[in-house]
Amino acid sequence: ETVIRCRAAVAWAVGKSLSVEEIEVAPPKAHEVRVKIVATGICHTDEHVLEGNFPEVEFPVIVGHEGAGIVESIGEGVTSVKPGDKVILFGLPQCGECSFCLNPDSNYCLKSHISSSPTGLMADGTTRFTCKGKAIHHFVGTSTFIEYTVVHETAAAKIDSAAPLEKVCLIGCGFSTGYGAALQTAKVKAGSTCAVFGLGGVGLSVVMGCKAAGASRIIAIDINKDKFAKAKEMGATECINPKDFKKPIHEVLTEMTGEGVDYSFEVIGRTETMTEALASCHYNYGVSVIVGVPPAAQKISFDPMLLFSGRTWKGSVFGGEDFFSSVFILNFLSSSFCSLALVPSLGTTEKNLAPSSLLPPIRYL
Amino acid sequence: ETVIRCRAAVAWAVGKSLSVEEIEVAPPKAHEVRVKIVATGICHTDEHVLEGNFPEVEFPVIVGHEGAGIVESIGEGVTSVKPGDKVILFGLPQCGECSFCLNPDSNYCLKSHISSSPTGLMADGTTRFTCKGKAIHHFVGTSTFIEYTVVHETAAAKIDSAAPLEKVCLIGCGFSTGYGAALQTAKVKAGSTCAVFGLGGVGLSVVMGCKAAGASRIIAIDINKDKFAKAKEMGATECINPKDFKKPIHEVLTEMTGEGVDYSFEVIGRTETMTEALASCHYNYGVSVIVGVPPAAQKISFDPMLLFSGRTWKGSVFGGEDFFSSVFILNFLSSSFCSLALVPSLGTTEKNLAPSSLLPPIRYL
Repeated sequence: ETVIRCRAAVAWAVGKSLSVEEIEVAPPKAHEVRVKIVATGICHTDEHVLEGNFPEVEFPVIVGHEGAGIVESIGEGVTSVKPGDKVILFGLPQCGECSFCLNPDSNYCLKSHISSSPTGLMADGTTRFTCKGKAIHHFVGTSTFIEYTVVHETAAAKIDSAAPLEKVCLIGCGFSTGYGAALQTAKVKAGSTCAVFGLGGVGLSVVMGCKAAGASRIIAIDINKDKFAKAKEMGATECINPKDFKKPIHEVLTEMTGEGVDYSFEVIGRTETMTEALASCHYNYGVSVIVGVPPAAQKISFDPMLLFSGRTWKGSVFGGEDFFSSVFILNFLSSSFCSLALVPSLGTTEKNLAPSSLLPPIRYL
Repeated sequence: ETVIRCRAAVAWAVGKSLSVEEIEVAPPKAHEVRVKIVATGICHTDEHVLEGNFPEVEFPVIVGHEGAGIVESIGEGVTSVKPGDKVILFGLPQCGECSFCLNPDSNYCLKSHISSSPTGLMADGTTRFTCKGKAIHHFVGTSTFIEYTVVHETAAAKIDSAAPLEKVCLIGCGFSTGYGAALQTAKVKAGSTCAVFGLGGVGLSVVMGCKAAGASRIIAIDINKDKFAKAKEMGATECINPKDFKKPIHEVLTEMTGEGVDYSFEVIGRTETMTEALASCHYNYGVSVIVGVPPAAQKISFDPMLLFSGRTWKGSVFGGEDFFSSVFILNFLSSSFCSLALVPSLGTTEKNLAPSSLLPPIRYL
């Protein structure tokens, strides 16, 4: 096992552009896997990190967490994958042993970056990345804006050798987050009415999830009408642009539906639209899901009567999906999902989420 | 059918004390029932109305909505009850025909005061109460601070002739609201940990609901330690007083439980404790229920990351219980619940919720 020298897009500090650097990647230690990244999605969360919205992330860091690739080498004790295996990486690995993993209501591990302090280091407290003599931090246990990364074995799921890596990388975050928000977090019922605020890659995945759940009406909302064609292709039955109305969008939706939608999803990350989405759903039994990442240190102010009358407001990470037991992901892992040809369509949109000025086109490193 | 002259506690205007007056109660019209009120609970919501927290309630009005009594006479077309029947009155009647009533996720009627404009009038747009020549409004279709009231037939549920009216009147609101919040709204699981903020009559009913659901740990919270003995009698396993701690109570609860409670209930009606209760529950799968009535026109400000990580925040009216199909109420209606002898204990506490200066002792008119 030797050190690999390769390229990575390094984030040296908050607010700085990514810098493509030559980097040393150490061999995997026990229970770790070194993976050649073949494709990575560019998620808005990566941009949030670069903008400083996650103050707990330590710089310098290699972001990117939506990756797929091929196992290059394995550390001692790894049995789940072997060199040459195709894998998808996951930012929410599951140890399978902690109180979280053993609880069916939980979908992430006590050892994940969300539960424990996100130090950006591997389990032994060190990093596998070095650049210009400096240790570079990992990001959510994945770090995919690089040619070779090192992850804990529970962060790499073996997939079918025929899986198209440039498509399935999105299963690692964006697609699953949106699709799961509809099926797992909201548990959309057949015949229901849904509203999706924000039609980026994750929003489109929510639309797909609502359609898969059998929703009879899916109202897609965005201030950019160029996204409507794709939304309809994915399953939206109606598309509306808040700029076309003078009244608040929750009033528009209530008028369109009588008493409000059954399920609403905020997939933007703005506190105003989070409250609008809540107010848009049925006051007795509506469910509203926060999917977009809220701005750092910004509070929501809302009238508690919105909840008192019976509404449910919830959030989820990774769509509330327990990766290793999720039916839809297991379906995917058996390759059937690829045939839907949905993921590639999303890919284009996901890419569009990140301003090209900030993130260089490194989808295929 | 004749007009009945009897006594009632009339609220002439916001902020004024109730005034016991002689009043005329008109006979019931079609599909209405006139009921001799034998017992009424005094709910904090009545006080909220008197304080002006429900601006949509029109004065003068006869409040009180937790009543039980005996049918005195029935209007044309009434078949569900007959004179002499014992009944509990309900502020959330169900017509059984509207889109709400036909939806299993809904627990109140499109024709209820919450769904439609609460005019305080009967279906024909008039009132059955007259005092000193003035029409007096009804309140949530019940108006129980009176010796004889008139309600729509769907607001009166026939009960066993052996039921003790002075106990079961609380089933009409307080007990069901708390008990249902645990069993129906939160769906507390066996073996779980619960926290109940506020130990009035409704809070104690939440404690009972958690116990009935099989919660293994029920942490009761109040700033009045005199309520702890009763809470333990009802099922609380621990009682804590926020005044005994310097740190916020959500931190105390998180330390007591490791990662937060599974279910938390705010049964006070303060925006600060609503947020504290939310923060007290598990960040991945915790469920927090708003049971207390929020202050009018007061907003909650909170960090949306509290929801983003996976928590669920919800409210419910009448505990989310669909009165006419609720298992626990049907159990009660068959009288088995009375044997638990829980309701009388609650009765005392409920009464304590209302300052005696504001509400005269009219439990037994």
